[in-house]
Amino acid sequence: MAAFHNEIRIRYQECDMQGVVYFARYPEYYDISLTELFRVALGSYQSMVDAGTDIVVAEQTVRYRSPARFDDVVDVAITIDRLGETSMQSAYAISRGGELIVEGDVRHVFIDVPTKAKRPMPEEIRAALGAYGPESG
Amino acid sequence: MAAFHNEIRIRYQECDMQGVVYFARYPEYYDISLTELFRVALGSYQSMVDAGTDIVVAEQTVRYRSPARFDDVVDVAITIDRLGETSMQSAYAISRGGELIVEGDVRHVFIDVPTKAKRPMPEEIRAALGAYGPESG
Amino acid sequence: MAAFHNEIRIRYQECDMQGVVYFARYPEYYDISLTELFRVALGSYQSMVDAGTDIVVAEQTVRYRSPARFDDVVDVAITIDRLGETSMQSAYAISRGGELIVEGDVRHVFIDVPTKAKRPMPEEIRAALGAYGPESG
Amino acid sequence: MAAFHNEIRIRYQECDMQGVVYFARYPEYYDISLTELFRVALGSYQSMVDAGTDIVVAEQTVRYRSPARFDDVVDVAITIDRLGETSMQSAYAISRGGELIVEGDVRHVFIDVPTKAKRPMPEEIRAALGAYGPESG
Repeated sequence: MAAFHNEIRIRYQECDMQGVVYFARYPEYYDISLTELFRVALGSYQSMVDAGTDIVVAEQTVRYRSPARFDDVVDVAITIDRLGETSMQSAYAISRGGELIVEGDVRHVFIDVPTKAKRPMPEEIRAALGAYGPESG
Repeated sequence: MAAFHNEIRIRYQECDMQGVVYFARYPEYYDISLTELFRVALGSYQSMVDAGTDIVVAEQTVRYRSPARFDDVVDVAITIDRLGETSMQSAYAISRGGELIVEGDVRHVFIDVPTKAKRPMPEEIRAALGAYGPESG
Repeated sequence: MAAFHNEIRIRYQECDMQGVVYFARYPEYYDISLTELFRVALGSYQSMVDAGTDIVVAEQTVRYRSPARFDDVVDVAITIDRLGETSMQSAYAISRGGELIVEGDVRHVFIDVPTKAKRPMPEEIRAALGAYGPESG
Repeated sequence: MAAFHNEIRIRYQECDMQGVVYFARYPEYYDISLTELFRVALGSYQSMVDAGTDIVVAEQTVRYRSPARFDDVVDVAITIDRLGETSMQSAYAISRGGELIVEGDVRHVFIDVPTKAKRPMPEEIRAALGAYGPESG
């Protein structure tokens, strides 16, 4: 295991009238954290886009165990579970103070920026993301 | 089948730099549409909360087939797939011009408003939601 | 006066832990409503963009008198107060059940889509928007 | 002058189809940064609320000079311009790489948490916020 970790402080406006984070904000936390993984692994998400490759979400899941609250600092751990020909499966475990509160998965598909057509994952991206795979480290 | 249908017009701020709806907005469309189902079935979501029962999301999934865009009008079809003792499973099919573009599921758990503890679904809610079940109609 | 009117139902996720609409959602209600004005006046906002002209916000204000709440239906009244050479000043009055709850202004600047440079407002847009001016009707 | 400074990295989902931060996100950056000022000045925003005092926004303005973009790191400088009997006026200057890009003001009103009625600002809050006044330091 070689999970990537990113800390996020919960913002006031991400919480709802139940006093907890609105459920649809969690996939946003996934995305914010994946941007940080890309920064470390690849320079930046934008540099990949500028080089002609982008990713789109094909599927995502969230399982909620316990709510996060305003001003909590949560840790988002990402593992790259599978690097397919044109897709990438990543797993997310969000915890607070060592307690797992939310988890789930995202499947991204690699696309060509100008045409938006599906394309094979560039080899340098595959190599860089492989470091966060479940069998790494 | 007795799906509930709700139309939503895509807002500018729900779209991202890729020119399509940001992926984390779709579970919001689920939620907005479920509020409309509750309005028809139960008077309103708020009336249920005022009567002491609320729901929280335990799990959600989204599968993306094709992107929605700014100003599109999409139809969100909801089916209540399962009414358990303390939980409810709902399925969502979002289409545009008859084409299915996004689909997924949500599992909600019923809670008691003052204590936030899990509680059995009230019978009048079970009866009202049953009309949108897969075996209904 | 020839204000344009647009109705918006407040969404659950637009409300915060204070149980009212989060303050930064109101300029979004302005924007959603201006899109509807453009639809009636010009065909659509997107058709203007496709024809090479876009608008960007140069300044906005919101004054809060009374909070809107989840599931409220509010009326957003827009008046186009001034059509300058390259800019447009619009005024917003948001009311609920006839009571004014929020008001404010936005100044937009017209830009050329490819260059993003400031440009004079196209004459057909000026003519169409003039119908919503304070001196009209 | 004794401005409080808070850095924010722009998130992907805060940008719109124009490729820049959506205009209504800037008052959110104000709010996120004010929470950080309160953390330093008062322990935390939540501790003030728990002690029975909250704040609501009475008015806000934003003037846009230049757009922020995805992944930019911006500095939000806050000055507390005026501490009235029941209200507080704060000024915001958002810059990127030393260039001022957005500025504006917010007027907050202090309220009593249980009744939501306007109330005088507690003296310890007045003292703590005074350090960020324009005449301080």
